[in-house]
Amino acid sequence: MVKIETPVVIINFKTYTKATGEKAVLLAQTCERVSNKYDVPIVIAPQIPDLFRVAKAVEIPVFSQHMDPGEPGRFTGHVLGDTLVESGCTGTLLNHSEKRMQLADIEESITKSHKINLFTVVCTNNIQVSVAAACMNPWSVAVEPPELIGSGISVSQAQPEIISGTVEKIRKVNKKVVILCGAGIGNGDDVAAAIKLGAQGVLLASAVANSDKPEPVLSDLVSPLSK
Amino acid sequence: MVKIETPVVIINFKTYTKATGEKAVLLAQTCERVSNKYDVPIVIAPQIPDLFRVAKAVEIPVFSQHMDPGEPGRFTGHVLGDTLVESGCTGTLLNHSEKRMQLADIEESITKSHKINLFTVVCTNNIQVSVAAACMNPWSVAVEPPELIGSGISVSQAQPEIISGTVEKIRKVNKKVVILCGAGIGNGDDVAAAIKLGAQGVLLASAVANSDKPEPVLSDLVSPLSK
Amino acid sequence: MVKIETPVVIINFKTYTKATGEKAVLLAQTCERVSNKYDVPIVIAPQIPDLFRVAKAVEIPVFSQHMDPGEPGRFTGHVLGDTLVESGCTGTLLNHSEKRMQLADIEESITKSHKINLFTVVCTNNIQVSVAAACMNPWSVAVEPPELIGSGISVSQAQPEIISGTVEKIRKVNKKVVILCGAGIGNGDDVAAAIKLGAQGVLLASAVANSDKPEPVLSDLVSPLSK
Amino acid sequence: MVKIETPVVIINFKTYTKATGEKAVLLAQTCERVSNKYDVPIVIAPQIPDLFRVAKAVEIPVFSQHMDPGEPGRFTGHVLGDTLVESGCTGTLLNHSEKRMQLADIEESITKSHKINLFTVVCTNNIQVSVAAACMNPWSVAVEPPELIGSGISVSQAQPEIISGTVEKIRKVNKKVVILCGAGIGNGDDVAAAIKLGAQGVLLASAVANSDKPEPVLSDLVSPLSK
Repeated sequence: MVKIETPVVIINFKTYTKATGEKAVLLAQTCERVSNKYDVPIVIAPQIPDLFRVAKAVEIPVFSQHMDPGEPGRFTGHVLGDTLVESGCTGTLLNHSEKRMQLADIEESITKSHKINLFTVVCTNNIQVSVAAACMNPWSVAVEPPELIGSGISVSQAQPEIISGTVEKIRKVNKKVVILCGAGIGNGDDVAAAIKLGAQGVLLASAVANSDKPEPVLSDLVSPLSK
Repeated sequence: MVKIETPVVIINFKTYTKATGEKAVLLAQTCERVSNKYDVPIVIAPQIPDLFRVAKAVEIPVFSQHMDPGEPGRFTGHVLGDTLVESGCTGTLLNHSEKRMQLADIEESITKSHKINLFTVVCTNNIQVSVAAACMNPWSVAVEPPELIGSGISVSQAQPEIISGTVEKIRKVNKKVVILCGAGIGNGDDVAAAIKLGAQGVLLASAVANSDKPEPVLSDLVSPLSK
Repeated sequence: MVKIETPVVIINFKTYTKATGEKAVLLAQTCERVSNKYDVPIVIAPQIPDLFRVAKAVEIPVFSQHMDPGEPGRFTGHVLGDTLVESGCTGTLLNHSEKRMQLADIEESITKSHKINLFTVVCTNNIQVSVAAACMNPWSVAVEPPELIGSGISVSQAQPEIISGTVEKIRKVNKKVVILCGAGIGNGDDVAAAIKLGAQGVLLASAVANSDKPEPVLSDLVSPLSK
Repeated sequence: MVKIETPVVIINFKTYTKATGEKAVLLAQTCERVSNKYDVPIVIAPQIPDLFRVAKAVEIPVFSQHMDPGEPGRFTGHVLGDTLVESGCTGTLLNHSEKRMQLADIEESITKSHKINLFTVVCTNNIQVSVAAACMNPWSVAVEPPELIGSGISVSQAQPEIISGTVEKIRKVNKKVVILCGAGIGNGDDVAAAIKLGAQGVLLASAVANSDKPEPVLSDLVSPLSK
C-alpha cells in the first residue's frame, strides 16, 4: 500500500455537472497538473460511475465517494470495496454528510479496507463523532460542520476551535490517524489557517469542482502547502 | 430513445467476482455474442463502478443496478441518472430486493428517467406492489418473490400464479409497461414457462453471472425466445 | 371494524411540545369536543409513546403517526400493528413526508392492517405517487406537496390542480379509497376549497397542534363540514 | 438523575406477544418483584407504545427500545427524547442490532440524553464498535455478537474473549461507562460468567420476555448478582 503524504488536499467532485463523465477526467488531469507543479499531494473523489475512466487517466490517488460493506456475491446495487479496487481506486470517503452510514457499517467498511489496501476517510460532523471514528482506525478522519458545507464560510476561519479540539481529542485515542477538516474551504488562506490549527490537510468540493476556472483556484489553495 | 424489443432477457451481474471488473467486460461480450447468435435482446446490469468500461465494450443495452433520485450538484456518493447517461448506460434497475427504495424516490427516479431517456425496471415482490409500480409508468416491472431469489427454484415453475396474476392485474392499469419475472430462473424451460404465463421476459442473475460456463447456460436460456 | 365517515379531518400532532404527553391528552379532548359539537368526524394522530394515554381518554379514533411492517417476536424498537391495536389505536399514518417508507414496507403494512382491522392513511407527495398508493388498497391516501407542509400556504389554494388531478387519476384505479389532502391547511376556507375540489377530508398539523388556542382554530376549520 | 447501580440486568421485551400491552405490564411487575426480592437492579425495555402504561405500573427503571435524535416540532412518527421523558421513561437503548442507527444520530441522541437526564445504552456488535460507542459518552455500552442474538448460545460461554476484550479496550478511552454484554444469555451461569469476565451486567430478551414462566427464569438469572 503506497503511502499518501501529508499535508494532503482531497477534492470531492460531488455530482457537479462540471465534474461528471469526460469533464471529470479533465478536472482530474487539472488536479494532477497542480499536484505535480506544487509538489502537494492531491487526492480526487469522482462519482462512482466515473471512477474507472478517471483512474485510467491520472496517476494521483482516486478515491470513491462511498463504499458499502459486504463481500462479493449478492448486494445488487451496492458499491463493494473489491469492485473499487478493480476500478483502480485506492481509497474511499465514508459517511459523508450527504451519505451518512450506520455505525456498524462504517466499522465493517474500515475493517474490509485494511484487507484490500484501501485508504478510508471517515467524514464526521463534530469533535465527539470524530473521536469515535478515530477509534475504528480509518486512514483519516475529516471533520466537517454540516452547516458550513457549501456555505463559502470556511471552518478554519468560522469555527477554529472545532479543528483544534478535534486534533486534541483524537490524539488521546489515536496517534496515527490523519486528521483533515472541511466545509467552506475556498482559498489558500483557509488552508493555511487549517494547517496552523493542527489539521493535516483539507477536504473540499465546490470551490474546485464547481468552478469555471479550477486550475487557478486549486493553485491558490495548495500554494501554502508547497515545499 | 432506442426501443428494446420483447421478449427480453436481463442479466443482473450482482457483485459476483466472476462478473466484476475485467471479468464483467468478458461476460458482457459473451452476452452480446449470444444475443446476436440467437437474435434475442439481452440487457446486462453490471456493478456501478463497472458501467463505463462495460458500456465501452459492447453494443447491447447496459443498465445500472440502481439509480438515486436527484439533480446534479450535491449528493456525494449518490448515483444520479445524468451520470449514468454519461457512462453509456441506457437504463437502470430500481428497487431491487437487495436495494429497496422509498416509494417517493422510485417515482422521482422514474420521472427523471423519462427526461433523460433511460429505461427503468422496477423490481417488485408481489402482485400488489407490481401494480403500484406499474402506475408510476416505468418502462418495465419485474416481479420477483424474494424467497426464491438465488434459490435455484424457478418462479415460473413454483409460483406460476404470481406471474399470471401480475400480468392480469397490471394490464388493468397500464397497457404498455413491459412485464418481466425473476427469481430462480435457471434454464430454457423456466424461461419458456414464464413466457407462456404472460411474462415478456425474465430477469436473472446467478445462473449466468456466477457460472463457470456462462455461454452454454445463457444459450440454453434464450433458445426458447429465438426467432 | 367501525366505519369512519367522510368528510373527515385528521389532526397530526407531530412532536409539538403543545401536543406531547399530558398536553396531548388535553388536545385530544379538545378535538373530541369540537367533533361532537359540529358533528364532524375528527381523527387524531399523537406521538407513538402517547397513544395509550390518549386512546384511554377519548372516544374519537386515535391513529399512530407510523407503523412498521413485521410480525411479533423480534424487531426491537419497531412499531408493530399488533401493538398499536393493544394500545387502543384504530389506525395509522404511513409514509409521512417526515417518515418516508420503502414501497414494499408500505404494502406489507397495509396488508397487515387489513388482518388486524387498522385504518391506514398513506401520505403521498404528488399525483403519480398517490395513484400508486391507491393501488395497494389502503383506507385512505393523503396527498401533501412537501414544499407546502408547515408553510402556512394551503394546498387547496396554491395547487388546486394537485387535488383535482389526484381525485381524477385515483378514481380510475380505485373507487373506494378515501382521498384526503394536506399541507398548509389553516382555516375553514382552505377546508371548503379542498372539499370543493373533490377531497373527502384534510390532514393537518401545525394550525391546530402548535396553536395556543386550538379550539377556535379547529372550530373554524371543521365548520364548513358541519351537517 | 437517579443512579442505577451495577451489576444490572436489562430485559428487552422486543415485540414478543407475551410482553405486549397488558402483558407487558404483568411482565414488568414480575421483573420488579424479582428485583426487590434479590436486591438486584433490573431495568426493563418494553415496546414504545407500551412505555406509558408500564412506567405507570412499576418503580424500576423503564427504558425505551429506541430513541430518534431531534427537537420537538416536526419529525412525524419519530420517537423523541422529550416525549420519552413525558412517558415516564428514564433511559433508552440505542442502535440495537434490529434497529441500527447512523453514527451521527447515535451521538446526537446521547448528547440530547445528557440534557434531559436519560440513561443511554448503545448496543454494539464487536470490540471496535464498542470502543467507538464508548467515546461518545453514553451511560452504557452493551456488546452483542449479532450471530448469537436469540441463539440460546451465551456470549459469555461461546465468545468470552469478546467480553474481556471489550472491557480492556473500552477502559483505555473511558473509565466510567457501564459495560454490559448480551446475546444468548439464558441462565444464572451465563450471567456469572459474564460478570467474571468483567461485564457490569447483561442485556437479554427471549429467555425472559418470551418465557411461559418468566419469574423462575429471571430469579435464576439474577441470583448470582444478589447481595
